[in-house]
Formats: sequence, structure tokens, C-alpha cells
Amino acid sequence: MTRRALASSLCLSALAVTLSAQNTGAPQSVFGYPDFSAQAKIDQQFLAVPDAKLAGEELKTLTAAPHIAGSKEDHDTALYVAEKFKAAGLDTSIVTYKAWMNLPKEIHVTATDANGKVLMNGPTPEHVDGDPFDDDPRVVTAFNGSSPSGDVTAEVVYANYGRPEDFKKLDDLGISVKGKIVLTRYGGNFRGVKVYIAQERGAAGVIIYSDPADDGYFKGDKYPKGPYRPDTGVQRGAVQYLFKYPGDASTPGTASTPDLPESQRLNPATAPNMPQIPSTPISYHDAAPILAALTGPNVPHEWQGALPFAYHVGPGGVKVHMDLKQDFAYRDIWDVIGKIPGTDWPDDWVVAGNHRDAWVYGAVDPNSGTAAMLEAVHGIGALLKSGWKPKRTIIFGSWDAEEEGLIGSTEWAEDNAAALSHAVAYFNTDVGVAGPNFDASAVPSLKEFVRVVTKEVPAAKGGNVYDAWKKSQSEGESRRHSANEHLGQGAHQNPDVEIGDLGSGSDYTPFIQHLGVPSTDIGSSGPYGVYHSVFDNYNWFIKNADPTFIYEQQQARVFGIEILHMADTDVLPYDYVTYGKEITEYLEAAKKKADESKVTGLDFAPALAAAKHFTAAAEAVYKKQQSLPANPADLNTQLRQVEGDLLSQAGLPNRTWYKHTIYAPGEYTGYAAVVIPGVNEAIDAKDSARGAAQLTALTEAINRAASTLETAAK
Amino acid sequence: MTRRALASSLCLSALAVTLSAQNTGAPQSVFGYPDFSAQAKIDQQFLAVPDAKLAGEELKTLTAAPHIAGSKEDHDTALYVAEKFKAAGLDTSIVTYKAWMNLPKEIHVTATDANGKVLMNGPTPEHVDGDPFDDDPRVVTAFNGSSPSGDVTAEVVYANYGRPEDFKKLDDLGISVKGKIVLTRYGGNFRGVKVYIAQERGAAGVIIYSDPADDGYFKGDKYPKGPYRPDTGVQRGAVQYLFKYPGDASTPGTASTPDLPESQRLNPATAPNMPQIPSTPISYHDAAPILAALTGPNVPHEWQGALPFAYHVGPGGVKVHMDLKQDFAYRDIWDVIGKIPGTDWPDDWVVAGNHRDAWVYGAVDPNSGTAAMLEAVHGIGALLKSGWKPKRTIIFGSWDAEEEGLIGSTEWAEDNAAALSHAVAYFNTDVGVAGPNFDASAVPSLKEFVRVVTKEVPAAKGGNVYDAWKKSQSEGESRRHSANEHLGQGAHQNPDVEIGDLGSGSDYTPFIQHLGVPSTDIGSSGPYGVYHSVFDNYNWFIKNADPTFIYEQQQARVFGIEILHMADTDVLPYDYVTYGKEITEYLEAAKKKADESKVTGLDFAPALAAAKHFTAAAEAVYKKQQSLPANPADLNTQLRQVEGDLLSQAGLPNRTWYKHTIYAPGEYTGYAAVVIPGVNEAIDAKDSARGAAQLTALTEAINRAASTLETAAK
Repeated sequence: MTRRALASSLCLSALAVTLSAQNTGAPQSVFGYPDFSAQAKIDQQFLAVPDAKLAGEELKTLTAAPHIAGSKEDHDTALYVAEKFKAAGLDTSIVTYKAWMNLPKEIHVTATDANGKVLMNGPTPEHVDGDPFDDDPRVVTAFNGSSPSGDVTAEVVYANYGRPEDFKKLDDLGISVKGKIVLTRYGGNFRGVKVYIAQERGAAGVIIYSDPADDGYFKGDKYPKGPYRPDTGVQRGAVQYLFKYPGDASTPGTASTPDLPESQRLNPATAPNMPQIPSTPISYHDAAPILAALTGPNVPHEWQGALPFAYHVGPGGVKVHMDLKQDFAYRDIWDVIGKIPGTDWPDDWVVAGNHRDAWVYGAVDPNSGTAAMLEAVHGIGALLKSGWKPKRTIIFGSWDAEEEGLIGSTEWAEDNAAALSHAVAYFNTDVGVAGPNFDASAVPSLKEFVRVVTKEVPAAKGGNVYDAWKKSQSEGESRRHSANEHLGQGAHQNPDVEIGDLGSGSDYTPFIQHLGVPSTDIGSSGPYGVYHSVFDNYNWFIKNADPTFIYEQQQARVFGIEILHMADTDVLPYDYVTYGKEITEYLEAAKKKADESKVTGLDFAPALAAAKHFTAAAEAVYKKQQSLPANPADLNTQLRQVEGDLLSQAGLPNRTWYKHTIYAPGEYTGYAAVVIPGVNEAIDAKDSARGAAQLTALTEAINRAASTLETAAK
Repeated sequence: MTRRALASSLCLSALAVTLSAQNTGAPQSVFGYPDFSAQAKIDQQFLAVPDAKLAGEELKTLTAAPHIAGSKEDHDTALYVAEKFKAAGLDTSIVTYKAWMNLPKEIHVTATDANGKVLMNGPTPEHVDGDPFDDDPRVVTAFNGSSPSGDVTAEVVYANYGRPEDFKKLDDLGISVKGKIVLTRYGGNFRGVKVYIAQERGAAGVIIYSDPADDGYFKGDKYPKGPYRPDTGVQRGAVQYLFKYPGDASTPGTASTPDLPESQRLNPATAPNMPQIPSTPISYHDAAPILAALTGPNVPHEWQGALPFAYHVGPGGVKVHMDLKQDFAYRDIWDVIGKIPGTDWPDDWVVAGNHRDAWVYGAVDPNSGTAAMLEAVHGIGALLKSGWKPKRTIIFGSWDAEEEGLIGSTEWAEDNAAALSHAVAYFNTDVGVAGPNFDASAVPSLKEFVRVVTKEVPAAKGGNVYDAWKKSQSEGESRRHSANEHLGQGAHQNPDVEIGDLGSGSDYTPFIQHLGVPSTDIGSSGPYGVYHSVFDNYNWFIKNADPTFIYEQQQARVFGIEILHMADTDVLPYDYVTYGKEITEYLEAAKKKADESKVTGLDFAPALAAAKHFTAAAEAVYKKQQSLPANPADLNTQLRQVEGDLLSQAGLPNRTWYKHTIYAPGEYTGYAAVVIPGVNEAIDAKDSARGAAQLTALTEAINRAASTLETAAK
């Protein structure tokens, strides 16, 4: 899975001009290097290696068979990746963890009208004429990871996107979901949140479908004619409550090694990140007869989707029988780990990862990223063969069971928590290539780093990646503006590309939000209507995403340059000035929200003072970073500690696994980042006491970081 | 037909507080009366008469059979209305005009794919199970009034709403409509404009359909389950170029009396208001197979409708054969005219009208208005029987052939142009009741008059009409605001109801825009998805619009009070202060537009000075109106002359029938009003020379009116 949240706040980096070099070709100088010319040569040597054709072959091999986590085919891909790592000269191992996971034994969803007439007998198998992959017997029936078994017959209530405001609207209409099956469409939040709120409100079960308004013909032509979701396409997915904690349900905070005894595990069936009501995903082909038969009030206008009839809220007119038999078990999963020891600072790890497991074939999600990673490994292998060695240790991780809840990455991160507490970066890619539009999310300290890297990498269609990225963002921007001309806003003035905040939905979560490793997430997007369906396969990919694999090559190059720069830079290029400014903006926005929602008793002054202190110290540190001291080891250690200082060991209320005070996935959004989450979520809950406590914890964290920055500046 | 354009500019009436009385019950004093108490008694006597049950019976009688203009059934309704007029004591006559009109002899629209396979063989008859009216053999096949016959086979291009910006987008896509059949959906402008632009661009023909996104299930449940357009429902309508001139094609500016010889007529087939390419309306049931088969590029996202597939622009994939055999002839039409001579100022006519002809049954459009008018007549008849007589002459007009192009009203107005040059008001109602939400358009001088009238009339559901109107507007407003929360605009601050500007689409057009008679148009709206279809019948009406006819009663009361006040007031209650302010706003907006679109050479200073002069004089006149001179005849004459002064005898460029310098239907919008049209349309055409000339003509008109106001103020 991946969902990259693009920050709506547009903060201009104060360092943009200084840090970035020329806009085309190799930069003359790059922040962190006394002399960039040696690195520039290495970069050029690297950039020549990643190969489009090879990436295509790797993608084809990886996606030859369905390879859900824990399956034999998944293990085969682990062996394949390990072989590639070894061939490149990496110190390679396959690390096994034990994960509590379900596979669908039997999934039945049937709908009947008031007279017992069968309206739908599903699930209808995913199929389109002309797809060579959809009929493979190894394709796993669409289901929800982490859904319990359940046999429920109930009336249906349609809840739009299943967001808090949608359930609130049902309250306004006087419609209860208690004992009902909630039918909700994908979009607006993480699917697990839909189930979480439905469970809080006493629903008997949840069905989630893809409405063609959001994900289907309303967007454009359906596969195989176009890239959009066909009628029978289903979005599988985990409904794990990952906003509580990701990874194996029985071992929050601890690695789920094969030998960890049951006595040291939670009962996974009742663990806090496990839903307690059954849920399952269906296609719009199967949702249509239910929605068409539903009675009750007409929906609020914005709840209407693109199926060809007027939607009703229910209940009434139709009963649904969900019979889900899940096969839950501890299953082995396999992370492939490849190391290149660093010569100068071997304990300063640069970790780069991508997951390998897929709901079905996963051509886009995740193996477009895997193929790109393999070509980055290929390039770095060529450097190794030429005698080059990194100053810091590079570690590649091919994670397993990401789809079930970031399990492979989370368990490995928990397993290596001590070493990771001083890892200098985690670079993620999940959906490497779904289309031509490069996109990134990052912690503020690495936003400018990503921009600098993309200026050095040639773009698939000429120029550099940065310029192509900027162009695609400004075209998207003007499309949005032309659709909103009545707003009377001027053209967007931001002269730099926007980089999103890290929420959740991919493997950076344990690194940044649990352990405080500065992280980025990169990928390339486009019209992608087969997410988590059988149709996300090689045939779809070469028809729609990247027929000649040139974006694969581009992605491999950006990923590789991120790693090389971070492994070899003298002074770590974290930009804490931007970080300080963003924290200040978050605080001001939260203060405004608290005022507007009349949540009193929150004194933002100490936190704002701390942020001011942080920013001032960051400016001083920045000058020191620029001065490039001869022996930067102590400075680097302090620079790295700043992100760690922003963790609170107590964690967030009710979800203590999440330790970062600035970023977390939203409890009620799931994928999208909530900034200064402890404070903002307390304000949303109108809980002044909790808000005050969280504001104190946040202030302490900012002050810790500011002190470290001050020490570093000395 | 009717489409009421609600002004987006919100001009607070300076007179609002002064002119209006208390918000409930009969007002204590009303502007124009030295003592309102006598009038208040007459009003109360009147208000007691209009009867909901009788209105329902009248509606049922009027809509018992399809009664298209010129048919025997139409003549029957004329006799019925005349009988009602006579029974009320009106001096009644049936006035016959001769109108060049088409009826469909044969209408065929078929679609075939590249292999000649028939995809659609239409038109499919309008039908739903459960409707008692749709199978009557007298129902006229759906067709376009004023469309020529034509036999065209061509490829298809989809042009969204057929607005200028849509055809511009086709240019951008490199797609020509030359020789093609343009398929366009209803909405965004008057259907005649769609054909007009397509003709300008060399299209071979036009097909217009109702997309369910705009008019069908995307809005709510289809009839008979709900009020919205069912699959087979077709919107008939005239494509006459009414923005050139309305009325009989052969007699612009002249009454088409039965004895007017051919030698004094234009050749109607080639007259300027007659389309030269064939066009026909179809249902979304019949449009779907064409759109589904269309190839070419995917549509721009905002062109996608609610049919269940991705739309393409074409051409390609499908050919359409339109074979339209129209039966054009001069046919007799029948206006019913009922007069009540005025005692004091018999030459000062108060005209009130509604059309009677319908495309099919016309329960909403127009006979909900006819029933309301008959109950207003009923009430005024009761006053007459009690001995009351109006001071000014009241004339009721039951117009014919409005649907074909405002023919009955236009011919009668042209016939009575001399007398109407000093008529004090024309009050229109077309769609009297489509639902519960009262709505009005008016010239600025009568906006406050309408507000005052509605404050006196009890609302169907309690309180007064004004308050109910305000409530429904503010609810609509907050719905719009809650859908646009991201705009960050505060709640709407306008403390008064908005009243729209008069564009076109109903019978006020000849009165205000050709002759300068101050006009209003009132009605009541609601979810109305059967416009111009067979389903706009008595069954739909009692299920959806007004089951107990209480809104019919309300409408009769408002219409009647408008007439009574205008007939009996001492000083005419025109509000020229508001008029002056609105003209100033129009000028400022046009100046801004000219600047932004870089149309130079337009000096707005003289026009703005004239408007300032107008407003200052209006303020002085207003004081005089308030002082209620003992013999107001001269003042009234001057007050009335002001609207006439705003006419330009030269008329608008290329459409000289339209004489009003402040309001006209837009040449490229058709229904919606364009303000200061000569100037604004020249700016849109980037024609500086024309703009300058129009600005001069406008300035002269405003100065004429200002001088008259100054004389009146003396």
C-alpha cells in the first residue's frame, strides 16, 4: 500500500537557494561536501548503470505469479531479490519473522430484497476480457487483512466515505448503524479507519467498495481500454488499526522473531490493532445491486456516486449476508537484508527499503519500486566492483507483509531499534512507478535534500527530474485553478516544488514515527485505477504506466543518489531551519483551531517560544554546517540527535507505539499525516486537559531538540 | 418555458427599510398610498378568495389533454380560460394571431457503429410504468420548435453544454465540428444558443440530450419514484434564435395578424431568428449508446456526465442518422384577453400574463401559473362584484405559443405597442408552482415592490411569503456554503432576499426588452425533473409539486396583490435609487472587464457621470414620491417615462428588436440576462469601436432618464 499525502501548507525553504545548485546537469557544489567534484564523478558513474530494460525484466520476474506475504511465491521472490543483492556484492541475508495474518478461507456476500429474492451473490470474480493474468488459480479472493471471521445478516446503511463527518451526518439524519452492515466507499481516509469508527458505533460489519465516481469509469476508460478500475476490480487491503500500531498484532514494540514465546505475546485476536467486527471489500459491480435496492432517505448530494441511479442512505429494501471465514495463523515472512559496511562511520546506517509482497501480482504496488531498487543496487554494485566503498553503512531492506500492516519493516525496525537510534536516514519507495509524475514526502529536514538530489538526476523525458517534477506540479496546480476559477485566487506563487508530510501507509512509519530516523518516501504517480486488484499486473503496467521502463530507470537513479549522498556526505545535510519554521506554523494553526473551536486552557506561548528557540539555534547550526568542519563526527551525532529529541518516550495517548511529537498518521484519517498529533487530536476531541498535557510534552521535545541544536552550534 | 436568472450581484435596496412595513400581517403603510388602510381592506377581501381546491380543479381541467399551441385542445383551453374571465366580470376576447410554426411529421434518430450495426433506433417513446398520461396518442413526439427539416448522416462530436467555452475547448483539442453532428447536453445556456454556435461553426446538425448528471438520477429518484427525469424523458423546446427576436419569424416588430399579407412578411424559413441546421432533443436513454460508442480523446474531466462509462469527445466509433421531417405552416394561435377598465387613469394599463400552451400537458409549465392566474382573476372578480373598481385599467393575458418563441405575448405586445408605451407594469408568471420555494425576477425599480407585496401575503405553510422566501434562500445559501467550506468565506451577510434580473425565456421579454414596460416575473420552484416532457402532467404535479394546491393559492395571492397595488396606488412605487445603483455597478464591472481583457478606447467616465446624475435625481424624486402630492398624474407619467428613456430606438447591434440598454438575454447565453448588453457584448467580442458606440448610446439613455427624473423631482 502507499498513499502519499501532499502537504497543503507551502513552506518556502529558507535554504533553497543556498542548498541547491544549478538547475541542470551535475551541481557545482552540494551542501555537506567540502568539494563535491569527487562525489559528482561517483554519481555519474552510478547514474550510467541503472538499466530500463533490466528493470523491465526484473519487474516481469517479480510479478510472474501472485505472491502474497507468506506464500511459496513470496518466498521465491525473496530468493530472487537475495540473489540480486549478492550478485551486486551486498552482504545478504533473509531474515524471518513470524506474523499473525489471515488468508480468506471462504468469502460470501449475498444481498436479498424484502421478499428474499437474491439481488447479488458475490463476490463476483475479478475478470475482464483481454487480461492474461486474472484467471490464475493462485489469485487470492478479495478480502480484508486483519478482518475477523464473521457470519452476519443485517440491514445496510450507506455511510459515504466513512469519515467522522459522514457518521455525524447519519446522526443528523437520525439513522443509527447499530447492528447494521455499514456500506462505505473507498476514499477520504484509510480503510481501517472506516471500520474503526463503525465498530465504535456498534455496527455489525462493514463492506467497502470502490465507487466509479472516485475509482472507475467516471475518471476515464476502464482497463483494458484505459487505466481505470473495471467493474469487477476490487481493492483488497488491510483494515488493521495501524494508527494504534503497525506490525505483528501480538508484539507491539518488540520484534516478532520466530522463537519469541507465546507467553511474551499479546493474544493477537484481541490485540488493540485488530478490528473486532468483520469487513470485506467488494467491487462496484457487486455494490451496485445493494445500493440500487436501498431505501430510506435520499443521500446528501455530495454522497451521490457515479452508479446510474439515485443513492439512498438506508436502512431498508435490502439485507446483506456476509459470511467470512478467515484462516488466521502465525505465518513466516521474509525480509531480505543487504549490507555494505561503511568505511568511516560504520555505525551510521543509511537504510533504503521497499516492500516486496503484493496482494496479487503487485506490478505497480510494490514491485515497480522493487525493480527500481534492484537497479539502484545494480548501480551501487558496479561502484563496489570499481573499488568504491561508502563511508557510512548502507542497508537495503526488501520488506515482506507490508500489505498486512507494515509487518516486515516494523519487526525489523523493532529488532534493530538500538542501532537505528542513530541511523542517519531511511529512504522508502513503495509505488515506484504508477505513471510519469515524480512525487515525494519527507521530514522537513530532508525536503531540500530531495530537491537537490532530483536536480542531479536526468529525467526520463529529458531535463532533470526536479524540473519535470516542478512542471507536473504546476500543471496539476493550474488544472485545479482552472477548475476553481470562481475562487478568484491568483496563480500559485510558490517557486519551489511541494513535498508532502509523512503520514502512514508505507514502510517509513516504524523508522520515523517509532524510532525517529529522518525519512523520505519517493515515487511516480499517474492514472492508476487497479490499486490492490488482480489487474495491477505486468500487462496493465506496460499498457499504462511505463511501457519502456524509463520511469523505472529514473526512479532507480533518484533512489540511488539519495543513498550515495547520505552515505558519503561529510556534514549531514539536515535542514533544521525549515523544520523549525514548519513546527511554528503547525503551532500557530493549532492555536487558531483551538480558539475557533473554543477549546480553552491551552497556553501555546511556551511551545512557540521553544520553536523560536529551535529555529534560532538551527540558523546558527546551519552556518556551522556550511563551514564544513574538518572533523564533523560530533556535529553529525548532534545533528542526528535532534530528530530523536522530537520523540516522546511516553508516546501518543492511547497509541504509545507512536513516539514522534510532530508527525503521526491521524487516528481518524489513517494515511494522512496529522502534525503535532497529540495537541491537534486533543483539540479535535475538545479535551482541554489532554491538550494541555500534550502541549507540555511537545514543548519539552522541542526544547530538547533546541538544546541539542545549541550544543551543535557551539 | 421559463428559466429565472438569479442575480449574483447583491445590491441592498437603499429603500428597503423605508418602503417595507412590518414583517408579518398587513403592512401599516405602503409607499405610494397616503393612507394604506382602505387598500389593506380591499387586499384582505381579495386574499380570502383564491381557493386551493378550485386551483387544483382548474389545473386538472387545463391539463386533461396535451394542448400544444395551435391544436384543437389548445383552443379548448382558450375557451375555458375565456369563460372563467367572463364569469369574473372581465371584458373578454380571444385574439387570434398567425404564427409560423412546425410540428414534427417524422423524427428519426438512429446510431450505427463502424460495422453498420444499429446501436440505437430512436426516438424511444417517453414512458414509465405507473404514469397514467404518457401513452395518449395526442402526445407530440419530442422535437425542437423552429428546427428545419433535415436528413443528415454524420460522425458525432460531443460538445458538453455547447457554450462558447466548450467549443473553444474543442478548438484546443484540435477537433472540428464542421460537417459533424454536435451532441450536446442541456444546461449552461438556452438550447437555441447551442444550435446557433454549432451553426456558426459549420456543424451539420445538433442533438441535445438531458444528462442524468444535470437532470436525472444523479439529482435524486426518477419519476414516478421521485421528481427527477426518467430515462426516456425528453426535454422538448424551441431552438428559435430568440436572442435575435422572439415571436413570429416573419414579423419582427409587427403584429402577425391573420390578415397581414405575405408581402409585408419576411420569408420565415430564412428569417434571422430561424436556425438553418436541423436539431432535435433526445433522452439519456437514447444518448447513452451514442456516447458509449464514441471514440476520440477522453473528455476534459468537467465534461463527464453521469452515464456509467467514460465519455469521449469523438469523432469516430459511431455515425448518427438524423431524419427530421417538420411540418411548417402558418397556424392560428389564440391569446385570451380580459380587461377591467380603470376609473381614474384608464390609459395606464397594468398587464398581467401567463402562457397557456404546453409542449404536452404542461402541469407545471405553464398551467400551474394559469391556475394561479385564474384564482387571482377569481379574487378580483369577487371585488368587482362587491362594487370595487380599479383606478387603472387591468388587463389579463393568457398567451399562446410561448413555447415556440413567446409568440402570443410578442404579437399582442407589438399589436398594442402604442398603448403599452405608457403601461405601468407587466406582471408575468410562467412556472407558477414547481415546488415550495418562492422566487422572483424584476427590473430594479420593482424589486422592492415585490418584497413589499410578499410581506402582505400569507405563506402556504404559515408566516408570510417574504419570510418563507428569505428562509428558503438562506437555506440554499448555507447549502452552497457548506459545499464550499474550503472557500473560507463567511456566511452570507445580505439581510434581504435576492431578486434576479430579467433575461429571457418567458413572456415578459416583449414588454420590458422591446417596449420598456417595468416588469416582474414570479414563481415557486422545487425539484423539477420533468421540464418539457410528457411527464410534466397532473399526476407528477400532485405527487411532487403541490398535492393540496396550497402553493397555487399562495401564488394566486401574490400575483393578485401585485396587480391590485399597481392598479390603485396613487404615486407609482418605482424605486429608481436602486436602479441607479445597479446601473453604476454594471458600469464598474464592465470597466473592470474591459481593463482585464485589454479592450481599450472605452471611456466610461461619461456613463458613470450619467449614472451618478441618475441616482442623485432618483433620490430627489424618491422624496417627492414619499411626499405623496395630491395630484400625482404628472409625476406618475414622468416616473413611467424613465424606463422608456432607457430604450434606444436603434436597438442592439445585429438584433435591433431588443431596445433596452440595460437588460437583454445574452446572445451566447439566451436565458440569462446580460446587463448593459451593448457594451458588455462588445467587450466580450473585443470590438472597441462597437463598444464605444454602445457606450455612447447607453450614456445617452441614462442621461435621458436622469433628465426625466430631474423634471419629475421639480
